[in-house]
Amino acid sequence: MKKIAVLTSGGDAPGMNPAIRAIVRRGIFQGMEIFGVRLGFEGLVRGDYFSMDLGSVGDIIHRGGTMLRSARCPQFREEESQQEALRQLRAAGIEGLIVIGGDGSFQGAAQLTKRGFPTIGIPGTIDNDIRGTEYTIGFDTAVNTVVEAIDKIRDTASSHERTYVIEVMGRDAGDIALWSGLCVGAESILIPEAPYDVEDVIARIDHGNRRGKRHSIIVVAEGVCSGMEIAKSLEARAGLETRVTVLGHLQRGGSPTAYDRMIASKMGAQAVDLLLEGEKEGMIGIQSGKLVHVSFDPTNKRQGLDLSVYHLARSLSI
Amino acid sequence: MKKIAVLTSGGDAPGMNPAIRAIVRRGIFQGMEIFGVRLGFEGLVRGDYFSMDLGSVGDIIHRGGTMLRSARCPQFREEESQQEALRQLRAAGIEGLIVIGGDGSFQGAAQLTKRGFPTIGIPGTIDNDIRGTEYTIGFDTAVNTVVEAIDKIRDTASSHERTYVIEVMGRDAGDIALWSGLCVGAESILIPEAPYDVEDVIARIDHGNRRGKRHSIIVVAEGVCSGMEIAKSLEARAGLETRVTVLGHLQRGGSPTAYDRMIASKMGAQAVDLLLEGEKEGMIGIQSGKLVHVSFDPTNKRQGLDLSVYHLARSLSI
Amino acid sequence: MKKIAVLTSGGDAPGMNPAIRAIVRRGIFQGMEIFGVRLGFEGLVRGDYFSMDLGSVGDIIHRGGTMLRSARCPQFREEESQQEALRQLRAAGIEGLIVIGGDGSFQGAAQLTKRGFPTIGIPGTIDNDIRGTEYTIGFDTAVNTVVEAIDKIRDTASSHERTYVIEVMGRDAGDIALWSGLCVGAESILIPEAPYDVEDVIARIDHGNRRGKRHSIIVVAEGVCSGMEIAKSLEARAGLETRVTVLGHLQRGGSPTAYDRMIASKMGAQAVDLLLEGEKEGMIGIQSGKLVHVSFDPTNKRQGLDLSVYHLARSLSI
Amino acid sequence: MKKIAVLTSGGDAPGMNPAIRAIVRRGIFQGMEIFGVRLGFEGLVRGDYFSMDLGSVGDIIHRGGTMLRSARCPQFREEESQQEALRQLRAAGIEGLIVIGGDGSFQGAAQLTKRGFPTIGIPGTIDNDIRGTEYTIGFDTAVNTVVEAIDKIRDTASSHERTYVIEVMGRDAGDIALWSGLCVGAESILIPEAPYDVEDVIARIDHGNRRGKRHSIIVVAEGVCSGMEIAKSLEARAGLETRVTVLGHLQRGGSPTAYDRMIASKMGAQAVDLLLEGEKEGMIGIQSGKLVHVSFDPTNKRQGLDLSVYHLARSLSI
Repeated sequence: MKKIAVLTSGGDAPGMNPAIRAIVRRGIFQGMEIFGVRLGFEGLVRGDYFSMDLGSVGDIIHRGGTMLRSARCPQFREEESQQEALRQLRAAGIEGLIVIGGDGSFQGAAQLTKRGFPTIGIPGTIDNDIRGTEYTIGFDTAVNTVVEAIDKIRDTASSHERTYVIEVMGRDAGDIALWSGLCVGAESILIPEAPYDVEDVIARIDHGNRRGKRHSIIVVAEGVCSGMEIAKSLEARAGLETRVTVLGHLQRGGSPTAYDRMIASKMGAQAVDLLLEGEKEGMIGIQSGKLVHVSFDPTNKRQGLDLSVYHLARSLSI
Repeated sequence: MKKIAVLTSGGDAPGMNPAIRAIVRRGIFQGMEIFGVRLGFEGLVRGDYFSMDLGSVGDIIHRGGTMLRSARCPQFREEESQQEALRQLRAAGIEGLIVIGGDGSFQGAAQLTKRGFPTIGIPGTIDNDIRGTEYTIGFDTAVNTVVEAIDKIRDTASSHERTYVIEVMGRDAGDIALWSGLCVGAESILIPEAPYDVEDVIARIDHGNRRGKRHSIIVVAEGVCSGMEIAKSLEARAGLETRVTVLGHLQRGGSPTAYDRMIASKMGAQAVDLLLEGEKEGMIGIQSGKLVHVSFDPTNKRQGLDLSVYHLARSLSI
Repeated sequence: MKKIAVLTSGGDAPGMNPAIRAIVRRGIFQGMEIFGVRLGFEGLVRGDYFSMDLGSVGDIIHRGGTMLRSARCPQFREEESQQEALRQLRAAGIEGLIVIGGDGSFQGAAQLTKRGFPTIGIPGTIDNDIRGTEYTIGFDTAVNTVVEAIDKIRDTASSHERTYVIEVMGRDAGDIALWSGLCVGAESILIPEAPYDVEDVIARIDHGNRRGKRHSIIVVAEGVCSGMEIAKSLEARAGLETRVTVLGHLQRGGSPTAYDRMIASKMGAQAVDLLLEGEKEGMIGIQSGKLVHVSFDPTNKRQGLDLSVYHLARSLSI
Repeated sequence: MKKIAVLTSGGDAPGMNPAIRAIVRRGIFQGMEIFGVRLGFEGLVRGDYFSMDLGSVGDIIHRGGTMLRSARCPQFREEESQQEALRQLRAAGIEGLIVIGGDGSFQGAAQLTKRGFPTIGIPGTIDNDIRGTEYTIGFDTAVNTVVEAIDKIRDTASSHERTYVIEVMGRDAGDIALWSGLCVGAESILIPEAPYDVEDVIARIDHGNRRGKRHSIIVVAEGVCSGMEIAKSLEARAGLETRVTVLGHLQRGGSPTAYDRMIASKMGAQAVDLLLEGEKEGMIGIQSGKLVHVSFDPTNKRQGLDLSVYHLARSLSI
């Protein structure tokens, strides 16, 4: 295998750039030529690629986002688009593909595999919600971004008597909320994976107040409800003065943390090596702290959030 | 003058702690005893103070918020509360007061002055909206916090084609929005001091798109409207895909920047020295880059935002 | 078991505070009373402890260092000191101890265990060099601190033609150097675990220059030599203009990262639970990404640095 | 005037990029064409420039260093080089030049002016040591970088009993040391502008210890001596356990602060406007907090560091 391509797809995540860098450099180190596909599957269909050399990934290891840009591409669900992508790839002499993205992106990747085109996935999303891996690139950076933001809110919180509600990302997964909530010592953490009860949230705030705490921090995963909704409930039911922060896309940005750079570098290099070794499909994941190669099999269950961490958080924020 | 007290009032701001530290240490250096008042004017009325030594302000120079805590205290508008505060101060042998806060706090301070109690104000609010000074402690930190947040949003913005709306604080003033908007190269900055027109915002986004920009950043001061409102307008009128971030109280927190620590230290020390020199009233301000002593005269006009900076920002984000 | 104590010993590490917090809160959650020992084993011998409540660990989860302070205590190697410590513990009715520190601290802990006093260790050091665990609290924060520092050096490096040498901590271990070197894309990484050759370092710099790179970054573990020494070699042998940065104790500080807060919280809670379950000795470690309970057995080998990461780094910085 | 060029020269400073951006965009806004000169005066002599459009300064406002790269160019002191530079400029139809740099760079600029070529200077250096201005671009960022580094050292300092020495930049000026020393509450600040006495440094450390402080922070400007030297003195004379950090070029990097971006944007735009208005020479400076236009006159005295800040710092770190 002499020519391979790489694309990023779906929502971008910090760490996609170090993954691209590792793919390009490992590929060149192994004697291959690497093509960068612009704008995800959309660029794949259009044949919008360029040859990358060592310099094209210089000075990107520390940048958030993705230098190849990303897009969702619903049209790639159609066979016609997939065939056009394959035609373009073959015309360019490209023999393998690496897709950095989430579950949706891997469905596209699996279609290429099914049609005989070697394709390896690398899990990249801040949500940490991909089947078959306990970690996805970008999660550590996103959590640290949220934690730093709430640490700042805490400064001002300590000066007043109020309840602060912070709405965080994660789509249907509560991982960002749970990690960041535990790491800032939030009074309550609302995640889609556990039922919640406004009365319990109020009781925990009251309990803190009785022992002299003057402020409370509530972290809400977007998959539960909006921060504004929960704030209104707290005000309506308990007369609490609340303030809402919606971190929004700030959580997708930021220079990748060391952990994300390391995992991205390992996964990027491994993806190249797997293609070289003749592997045809599947995703690189982390299981028990080690890199593994798992199939795209859509019946794989998402590992799911570790609820023992939720109970730990509750026992520590009494 | 041997005994003076210090309080923080109104919304807290990063830099209040280094100001408190400077007051305590400069006071002790000058042979005085310094009392810290808890919870602003509320604590003043209740006589809730404690004697501070060098150690009580150890390890606070870099902390956001205010170690004395803060509160708004509407009751202090009543003469009865003011008299009670004076009675408590005199009973404790305290001869002067330093108030760190905003315009509202200085109205309280002016009442004490009017009744013969020496009181000096230090401008502390992230909004930069106090009469008689071109700078208020906390503004530099708040602007840097917003700039860092938008720098992160930009990472992800560059990976997609979207418009990002960021709602920032400032009450009726556009200073935070204008500074942060210019410093991140926002396409449009909406401030209460300048009329705005959604069509102009859309035209600027279009103009950027035509020259190849794929994302746009719009900074909106809370004094104009909510970020959600402007996002809805952009979607309704131009079909733009927008994402909203509401930074909220994160803007009040964070370790004070060097500039805020420096100004806070200078103002705190100066306030002590003014009381020692027999000054009875007024606020420390900055004019033409220098510390000045101005009266609390409520007919002073707020310096107002420098609109030339607004026009500069527009000329640079063509 | 109703009363337990906690101490921090040896060099401090970011994350010790969240570990202390977790111990105190989990202990109280489990119905115990927790005592904080000041200044490590020195305080243990002197009986210098205090009872901790929920509030005593309020607002510390995000602080670097250790609120209990730390010290090395060579005298604790003597039996007399150990007996005195036990006498004090028993007099206070304390039935178990948690020691947060490194290998040296665990030798002290093992002595207490040997004399029948239940003692559990938690690995805390930025160096990541403790036997029986693949992770030590503080390492992730230290690596991110180094990475952020080198990211800044890179800004200026790109503006000039020079070689930058950064000396990092790690005692006899190269983990900090290897992780941070890979994560910033350093041209060469010098670690105690791999032989190095100045000619190879020069060759790699030359190779980069030939393909248009204008600056080079060399990360040196303190266990190899001082940054100044390697800079002198590069100047003497190849006439390279070099600049040296010695990060020093800045690497021990900083707010703990999310990962360090999470691991510290899990380990702290687990240590309490183990004592409650009647465990008498051993350390909590991480193996294959999971919490484990391992004995203090000094014949355990240090996991050692993963040399495949070293070779990965070399293949990516061609 | 239709065509102007811009170069950066000498040591780079954070904020040079936003200055370049402002020059390019303001120039285009004013209907001009802007050329970027690579590598400072060296590129000017070689005629190494390129035409810049709005996109060439996209996404640089937040980046440290200088996209035009910088170099010292001793050869430009010779008339021959100056004439060659002028010949190249005229051949390209360029009618004016903006030089971002320090005193050395402005001597070069003054030579061009003397030969009739309109040249405006913008002060850019972290050292804050340029004649005729109270501020130079990059200083605020450098001070904040140092302050953040020492804040981290303080975390670990509080856990032990030690003296920490931090060596900072500034060439012959003590501004960075003085600002950062005051802003972190250093026990002693050693600057070239004030005599120092090791006995006084020791006395201040002792004084702190007597009132219960366990650690001391000493900030030393490189213009005084190396951090290692002062550490050796403290150990030799008073037996103090010291740790040294040499921040080195990390101080030149980092994303520019809001203040540096704002000043750089104002100065860049102003430089363009001055050339348009027919100004032929001189530098933009800040005096009394306002932009001013001052001549390159080398007999101008450097404003010099404000020693009252030094005495303020001493009175606050008693």
